[in-house]
Order: sequence, then structure tokens, then C-alpha cells
Amino acid sequence: MIDINTILSGNRLALSRLLTQIENDTPEGRAALNDLFPHTGNAHLIGVTGAPGTGKSSLVNRLAYFYRHSLQGQEAKRVAVVAVDPSSPFTGGAVLGDRVRMKDLAGDAGVFIRSMASRGSLGGLATATAGMVQAFDAAGFEIILIETVGAGQAEVDIARLAHTTLVVEAPGLGDDIQAIKAGILEIADILVINKADRPGVENTERALKGMLNLAHPVQRVFQHHGQFMDVEPAVLTESAPMWLPPIQKTVATEGSGITELGSEIERHRLHLQSSGDWERRERARLETELHQLLQSTLVSRWQAGVSENQYQQVFKQLADRQISPRQAVKELLNGGFPK
Amino acid sequence: MIDINTILSGNRLALSRLLTQIENDTPEGRAALNDLFPHTGNAHLIGVTGAPGTGKSSLVNRLAYFYRHSLQGQEAKRVAVVAVDPSSPFTGGAVLGDRVRMKDLAGDAGVFIRSMASRGSLGGLATATAGMVQAFDAAGFEIILIETVGAGQAEVDIARLAHTTLVVEAPGLGDDIQAIKAGILEIADILVINKADRPGVENTERALKGMLNLAHPVQRVFQHHGQFMDVEPAVLTESAPMWLPPIQKTVATEGSGITELGSEIERHRLHLQSSGDWERRERARLETELHQLLQSTLVSRWQAGVSENQYQQVFKQLADRQISPRQAVKELLNGGFPK
Repeated sequence: MIDINTILSGNRLALSRLLTQIENDTPEGRAALNDLFPHTGNAHLIGVTGAPGTGKSSLVNRLAYFYRHSLQGQEAKRVAVVAVDPSSPFTGGAVLGDRVRMKDLAGDAGVFIRSMASRGSLGGLATATAGMVQAFDAAGFEIILIETVGAGQAEVDIARLAHTTLVVEAPGLGDDIQAIKAGILEIADILVINKADRPGVENTERALKGMLNLAHPVQRVFQHHGQFMDVEPAVLTESAPMWLPPIQKTVATEGSGITELGSEIERHRLHLQSSGDWERRERARLETELHQLLQSTLVSRWQAGVSENQYQQVFKQLADRQISPRQAVKELLNGGFPK
Repeated sequence: MIDINTILSGNRLALSRLLTQIENDTPEGRAALNDLFPHTGNAHLIGVTGAPGTGKSSLVNRLAYFYRHSLQGQEAKRVAVVAVDPSSPFTGGAVLGDRVRMKDLAGDAGVFIRSMASRGSLGGLATATAGMVQAFDAAGFEIILIETVGAGQAEVDIARLAHTTLVVEAPGLGDDIQAIKAGILEIADILVINKADRPGVENTERALKGMLNLAHPVQRVFQHHGQFMDVEPAVLTESAPMWLPPIQKTVATEGSGITELGSEIERHRLHLQSSGDWERRERARLETELHQLLQSTLVSRWQAGVSENQYQQVFKQLADRQISPRQAVKELLNGGFPK
């Protein structure tokens, strides 16, 4: 058993152990998260996503440093970084990332960095990320940076965890029609053009502005709900206050633009809180997490109730194309559904 | 009801209607897929994935054209294209892609192109893609190109649908450490450097060769299984014959390198069939599809059995942080689980 008081009091070693338990989805980790949950809800969750090659890790490094050393007239904030790599199911890419990023911030007890590569299922990864964020939140980290690699649905799902989502672009990537297809712009609360000292930055900025005009931020609230069940249909008819995502240029390797980016993040937090969106996003986030857990629990329960023998028989019929996948599901559920 | 004979006999309008039914997951679409399933298993499924900006759509166009007009001493093959855009849950990016790609191939009855943007859940998208591929397969399309945008877990999952996966890169993207994190290299059967007339192509090729030496293709077989249940544990101990992914340079806009790419695809097909990997991938694919369908069916059944009132009560406790997400799942499942 993990003593949750050690986590609440900020014991680093205990937290580190808990994170491993969460990543491995152990009963101890689950029990601790249950106990810690009432102590969560205080952190500002900031998602950072974008295509490979945009310099997200450096940017996250710089932001962490900013919250530690550059806040004007405020106490330094405790910063956690969860780096999620859903696109690397095979090798430990995230571990390599760790080494690169650690230099600036090593030895600072107010910073905690944790990387996680995909472990099989995407649902498992999202659940583990949510759990880690909760652990950091309960442990008193005020800023939690969630960094994801890539630009797919996985990143959209993980961005749903955040209050504020930064989408990072870089000059020279995505100036053609394919970039429009990437479509993650529409999850952006703040657009960052990193590597802004590179040629082509004006084109990138122009392209992003053009795309912003096409996007409809209001839809975001609609998308957040309606995922699973309409918890609060009233929210859907209420018109959401507008937030036009600003574009912020940075050169993370040199640290330029970071203070301005920090101000935009703070401005977004104030907007969320005054508009009621903070609360709405919290609810949407919890709903998503609830749905994912429901799904995986339903599958585990079913697995516990079906015999391997029966599964193999049905799968053989499927592999021989005697029955379709949907017919196989029907046979498996009617036979093997737990009482 | 859809008369499946119209599909089997190649009626284009009937196929088009069926594809819409599949995309909308209607009872008619499901019933037709059940009936068509015994007629599937003949097509060569070719996945094409890679980051935005690499020119995948042009490449897919050219490949379709190749199978129609450039096969040496063979009859032209019927070609279907399923363009999947999992990263665009909000706007119809895929529709735009359609217009760009249609020019070359319009009016050819041996080519069928269908785009699909994400409709909510990722699982739904994968299921719809699998269904469309089955419909094309049953309708006698011998080559099915499955194009996905992006480089995340979604693409890995969709690549699992294919017998042969092409990963497309382009010079100037991904020469830094982030590219290694993308990690989709390891799902590549064939690496394509498109836009190979651009500066930096030697660097890209060198980087890819270096990464290929790090990747272990043997793991792929292991990853394909072990996703859900070990159907054939014997497969895991059997050593897989080696396939070293070749690197093929192309300039899709000019059509250069396409014939050579076609030869590599054919060489891979022969390798799969002689090594037994074709059969193994078929099984892995069916297993993945079965798992996804099981999951969504379990959730629907549970939803049908729980009252909205009960759901709302539990969700309120969760939103107030009185209970954790996992405790909420427990309450919902113990109360609302269908008999």
C-alpha cells in the first residue's frame, strides 16, 4: 500500500514510485489514485502538441524554466512535465527525449519530469496519462505540462486532458495543402510558431492566420460534450464566449518569446475562469476519462467470463471466413458474457 | 436491404451506396458486410502513411495510375483508394483532398476513390475503414490503397489493416531528434522518400538508413499478436523470416520512381506469401477488428441497460470529486450492468 500522505506532503521518491505504479496500472496505483482524487483540481493543465520537428521538447523545457525563474512578482510555481509518445509503440523514444531535456532543469526540486512511451493500447496510454496528471495535481504541482508527439487523433484525445492547449508549428513544415488536413489547429487555444528565426516564418504565420479564420472555436465546446452521453445538454445551447487563439512566435533554443507565451497562457487561464469554460473543460475531461475506464473495464470483465477455448473456436470460424467479425462478436457475447 | 449480388457483380452505384451505409454504420450496412465477408480475402491491402507535407496523396494517385496503365505483361488491376483522415475530427479536410486527387483518374471505371474524415471516435473510424476495405475486396478490387494522414497511434492502428505498409518521408522534415520519436519507421515494410528532387535528400536517406539499423522487424510479428489474447502462441516462438525494408526514392509529381516502387510492393507481396506472413497478418488484422467490435458492442450493451438518471447521479459525484473515476465506473457497472 502507498501511504497517500507521503504524496500529499510532496515526497519525491514516493511520487516517483506511484507514477510507476500508475504506468503499470497496478492495484496499488489504482487504490492510491482513488484516495488522491479528492485532492485534485488545483493545477493548470497545459497541453503541448504539434508535428515532429517543431521543437516541442525545447519549448516545454523553456516554459518549465519560465515558471521556475521568470514570473514577475509571483512565487515560482511547481512544474510537472508528462511527455507522452503515443506514436512510438515499439522502442523507447521517450527515454532518449529525457536525456535531451534534463540538462536545464536537473537538480531543481520544484520540477518533476516524466516520460511515457505507448504501452500497447491507446486507451491504456490515455488512462495512464490522466492518472499521472492526477498524481502530480494532488502532490501540489501547480503547472502540469502535457507534451505529446505527433498530430493525430491520439493527440486530440490527450489534448482533451488540458485546460490550455498549445499547438506548435515551425516554418517550412506544413505550408501545403496537407497541413490543412492535419486539422489540429482547431484544438489550439494558443498557436506557437517555434524556430521563428528560420526563413519562411512570414509564410507560416500567414497560413496559420488564414486557417484560423476558417476554424470555429465555438464548436470545441460541442465536441467536448456529445462524446458519450449528453451530461449537460443546456451547455450546448448556451453560446460560448469567444476566444480567438493568438499566434506567438518563439525561438525555444534561445529562449525568445517565452515570457510573452507565458503571458498568453495566463490570459487564457483567466479567460477560462471568467467564462465558465474552466469548469466545462473539467467536466468534459472527467467524462472522457470515465468513458475510457468504462470501456476497458467492460472488456476485462468480459474477458474474465469467456473461456479461451470458446474464443479460439469462434476465431477459427472468423479466420476461415465462415462468419464475419460482427457475427463472431455476437457468438462470443451471447456465449461468454459474464453473469 | 442491399442486394449483395449487385456489389459482387461490380455495380458502382450500389457500391457507393454501401460505402455510405458502412460509414454511417447502419443496420443495412452491417447486414451487407456480414453477407459479403465470405467473398473477401483476395485483395492486396497497401497502407500509405507519413507526416503531413510528404506528398502522400500524389503518391497514391501515381500508384493507382501505375496499377491501371503500367503493369508489364499483366492485365490492369482494379484499384480502390480509402483515404482516412483521423486527425481531422472537426472539418472536412478529406473532401478537399478528393478534389485534388481526382484529376488524373476521373472517368476510369477500374478506380474507386473514397475519402473519410474522422467521425467522433477513433474506434468508429477504424471499424468503418475495415468495413470499406471489405466491401472493396468483395467487389473485386485487387489493389486497395489505404492512405492515412499523420504519424500517431491512429496511423499505426490503421496500418495494421494493410499487408504492405509504405511510410512516406520527404527531405527537410524530420532530420532532428524528434523524427526518431515519431517511431512509425518500425511499421514500415517499404520506406519512400518522396520529393526526392529536393535538397537534403542524401541527409534524409542517411538518417533513415541509420534508423533502420536500430529497428527490429522481427518484433513486428510479436506486436501484431499479444494485442488482445494469444490466439496462436506458437507463432511467437517461431522465428519470422527477415524482411529488410527497402528505401525507394520518388518524385510523385513527376511520376519518377513509381515503377520501381511498384516492383518493391510486388516483391513484398511475394515475400509475405512465401514466408507465411500474409496469413499471419490476415489473422492479426481480423483479431484487431474483432477486438474493436467487441469493445464497442460491450459499451453499447451497457449503455442500453443504464438509465440516464443513474448516470447523471454518479457523474455529479465525480464532478464534485467525491468519488474517483474508477469508483464511478464501479458504481455504474454494478448498478447498470445489463442482465
